[in-house]
Amino acid sequence: MDLIDVFKKKKIGDSVKIEGWVRNNRDQKEFGFIDFYDGTSINTLQIVYDKSLANFDEVSHILAGTSIEAEGVLVESNGKQEYELKPSKITIIGDCPSDYPIQPKRHTMEFLRSVAYLRPRTKTFQAVFKIRSVAAMAIHEYMQTNNYVYVHTPLITTADCEGSDQMFKITTFDLDNVPKTKDNKADYSKDLFGKKTWITGSGQLHGETFAMAFKKIYTFGPTFRTENSNTKTHANEFWMIEPEMAFMHLDDLMDEEERTLKFIVKYVLKNAGDEIDFLDKFVSKGLRDKLEKLTKSKFVRITHHDAIDLLLKSGEKWEFTPDYESDIAKEHEKWITDHFNSPVFIYNWPKDIKAWYMKLNDDGKTVAAVDLEVPGSGELMGGSEREVDLDKLNELIKVHNVDRNQIEWYINLRKFGSCYHSGYGMGFERLIMYLTGIENIRDVIPYPRTPGNCEY
Amino acid sequence: MDLIDVFKKKKIGDSVKIEGWVRNNRDQKEFGFIDFYDGTSINTLQIVYDKSLANFDEVSHILAGTSIEAEGVLVESNGKQEYELKPSKITIIGDCPSDYPIQPKRHTMEFLRSVAYLRPRTKTFQAVFKIRSVAAMAIHEYMQTNNYVYVHTPLITTADCEGSDQMFKITTFDLDNVPKTKDNKADYSKDLFGKKTWITGSGQLHGETFAMAFKKIYTFGPTFRTENSNTKTHANEFWMIEPEMAFMHLDDLMDEEERTLKFIVKYVLKNAGDEIDFLDKFVSKGLRDKLEKLTKSKFVRITHHDAIDLLLKSGEKWEFTPDYESDIAKEHEKWITDHFNSPVFIYNWPKDIKAWYMKLNDDGKTVAAVDLEVPGSGELMGGSEREVDLDKLNELIKVHNVDRNQIEWYINLRKFGSCYHSGYGMGFERLIMYLTGIENIRDVIPYPRTPGNCEY
Repeated sequence: MDLIDVFKKKKIGDSVKIEGWVRNNRDQKEFGFIDFYDGTSINTLQIVYDKSLANFDEVSHILAGTSIEAEGVLVESNGKQEYELKPSKITIIGDCPSDYPIQPKRHTMEFLRSVAYLRPRTKTFQAVFKIRSVAAMAIHEYMQTNNYVYVHTPLITTADCEGSDQMFKITTFDLDNVPKTKDNKADYSKDLFGKKTWITGSGQLHGETFAMAFKKIYTFGPTFRTENSNTKTHANEFWMIEPEMAFMHLDDLMDEEERTLKFIVKYVLKNAGDEIDFLDKFVSKGLRDKLEKLTKSKFVRITHHDAIDLLLKSGEKWEFTPDYESDIAKEHEKWITDHFNSPVFIYNWPKDIKAWYMKLNDDGKTVAAVDLEVPGSGELMGGSEREVDLDKLNELIKVHNVDRNQIEWYINLRKFGSCYHSGYGMGFERLIMYLTGIENIRDVIPYPRTPGNCEY
Repeated sequence: MDLIDVFKKKKIGDSVKIEGWVRNNRDQKEFGFIDFYDGTSINTLQIVYDKSLANFDEVSHILAGTSIEAEGVLVESNGKQEYELKPSKITIIGDCPSDYPIQPKRHTMEFLRSVAYLRPRTKTFQAVFKIRSVAAMAIHEYMQTNNYVYVHTPLITTADCEGSDQMFKITTFDLDNVPKTKDNKADYSKDLFGKKTWITGSGQLHGETFAMAFKKIYTFGPTFRTENSNTKTHANEFWMIEPEMAFMHLDDLMDEEERTLKFIVKYVLKNAGDEIDFLDKFVSKGLRDKLEKLTKSKFVRITHHDAIDLLLKSGEKWEFTPDYESDIAKEHEKWITDHFNSPVFIYNWPKDIKAWYMKLNDDGKTVAAVDLEVPGSGELMGGSEREVDLDKLNELIKVHNVDRNQIEWYINLRKFGSCYHSGYGMGFERLIMYLTGIENIRDVIPYPRTPGNCEY
């Protein structure tokens, strides 16, 4: 029986049989205590055994990490929990040596990264990866109950319109010996697809083709960038959610982003409440308050222009001077969310610093783009209304030097029953960092890939 | 308002405002009929307009594919549907030329593949991709309500233990000019990760590390194989689900696979019933019956040895003679599921034709592997109990020529609180082909990647 079902369904006096692992075993002469877990709950069950066990001596020598099967009856506990297990039988399934790296003490996050295949056994990572799983479910739940269709956009792609310098190449070639053409270039006609291929950094363009068929769609899958950047927030492999909605303008996009994020946070509070409380207590003080507050707040909306105004008038000393034509720095994001004490949508950005497919506003200077900034984490969602005017789109494609041959199909969407539509992207790890209070992206991904690091 | 919500919540006499596309427009002199859809439902709403519309002339010339906004009242219909829309206003949002490829007539699947970015607008693909989305949700729903944790195993990997010849290489190198070492090999120290990396073909090994922490986990993500195979069932990019369960033997694995598959099929019948009925009528006669039958059947269980016995005694003429030491051919799969008229688990396979990590049975000849064969589609799930005996595992690693340096961590799982455990893989496209009756994998993936084909 799963331990979480024991906690949910069983009461004092009930018999249970459980399999799992020993987090700690404190043996006295005549009795002992095992902290038992099986990973289905962040909480442990205390097993209090004594000499009535046939193999008392063996059990009293069980080391941390050992897997066991235990049978017995739930009895009243003197501890913090409602009950403990009085075992009639404990069987060792797999033992564990004394040099097992995960001992019942505090380990640093750095050390745990070095044993990434064992760290999910610690309470902190049980909380983090459970929340990651529950948050993924929250996204699917929200989307599917709101008539979104989940689309698996392709990862292998020949369209490098996001900038192929940021994309990994994928090939079947032996890199020691790449087949060459007469003029000494790689001969892609000999590769599996017969052409140069990349692993994509976004499913948005393909997603739009499905939004033009299903009205509301979302992608949710792995994404890759070659960025050679060793910061706390960059990884070369990460997961992303990219919803795209037909018949939606920028205002409605902000409404929808707000609804979606609040749903996710509420869902996680409801379905991983114990994990949130654990992290609140040991990792990120105030986490539950922060999340509950978000679900109740009304997100602020401010144009990029007005945000820059505020920053300039704030009287703060900035490392980067706020500028009407430029992006907003981390220090600015922080000041703005602190100032409003709330999540903030910043919209209508200068066109030159945003992507080519964003809708040009009537002022000719800004695009209908919006970034959501949240207290403590900065940018969480980035979206826009899309340019659907064929002439303007063609102009943008030219200005941004996009190869239109690769995306003729995308341009054609504007010819065949086109409509105003909007979408956004949310980095899933960014969301998990927000939900857990964990500050390094390496600690919210099972096996992180960063420059120079591809272990396991 | 989404059309599916109109169908669910609105009744005759209600006013509605909807945005979507025109599937067909048949205009008479004094009135006309628009088949309206927005992709949230496979069903269309008939809009019956007449000269009371201010722009009657414009509306009567609307071509298929045009996007519109329509306002009006639901009135009784003489047709098959409960009601139709009597519009007070129809606004054209985006027009569509007469050479629009998707016309209101039957197109071949081959033609539709050539306009893959438009095919989701056809009814057949609206059904297929909606079912794909609903089936994905079914999997998450089953797993999460049964205490599984969703794990995002890495796609970029340095472990080529599944056979690197079947894996794509991933690199940041300019393939025209790969950096070389002194002995003229590719100099991976100059690549982003500082070593040779692939895109994975399975998350199982990484998944096992999490099953040893969370008891029950599943992966669900894209997977890649370089197989140069142009069949109806092979693609180079596909999605896979790989659950892994600690404290589970082979018998329980079969129970769990059966429960899981039945849940998925029931969920799809319940949540995409209209789509199933559409495909039943126009694409795959008997589809609903086939699926309903599966949910009620008790799956048969037979050893590989006994299955070969049956095949040999069947009196059939085989292209491939059944053999106790060999795999089972497609023709055998078909005969067996026909014979039992039910899904069939074939278990205890000859060890030499199965993977190196499968548990060796006491006979020393077979492994505790199981394939699930379903009527009409052949193999749908493939799983096994895993080898946990360290000596046997070391022997298997040697026999199969696996590079143990790359998977020291995997081997170590057997040292630190090891336990009996099992898992299986299910190809998601295989499942969708089963659920839809669609016979070519290219028609159940949004943008299929097959040898020589990487369009869009």
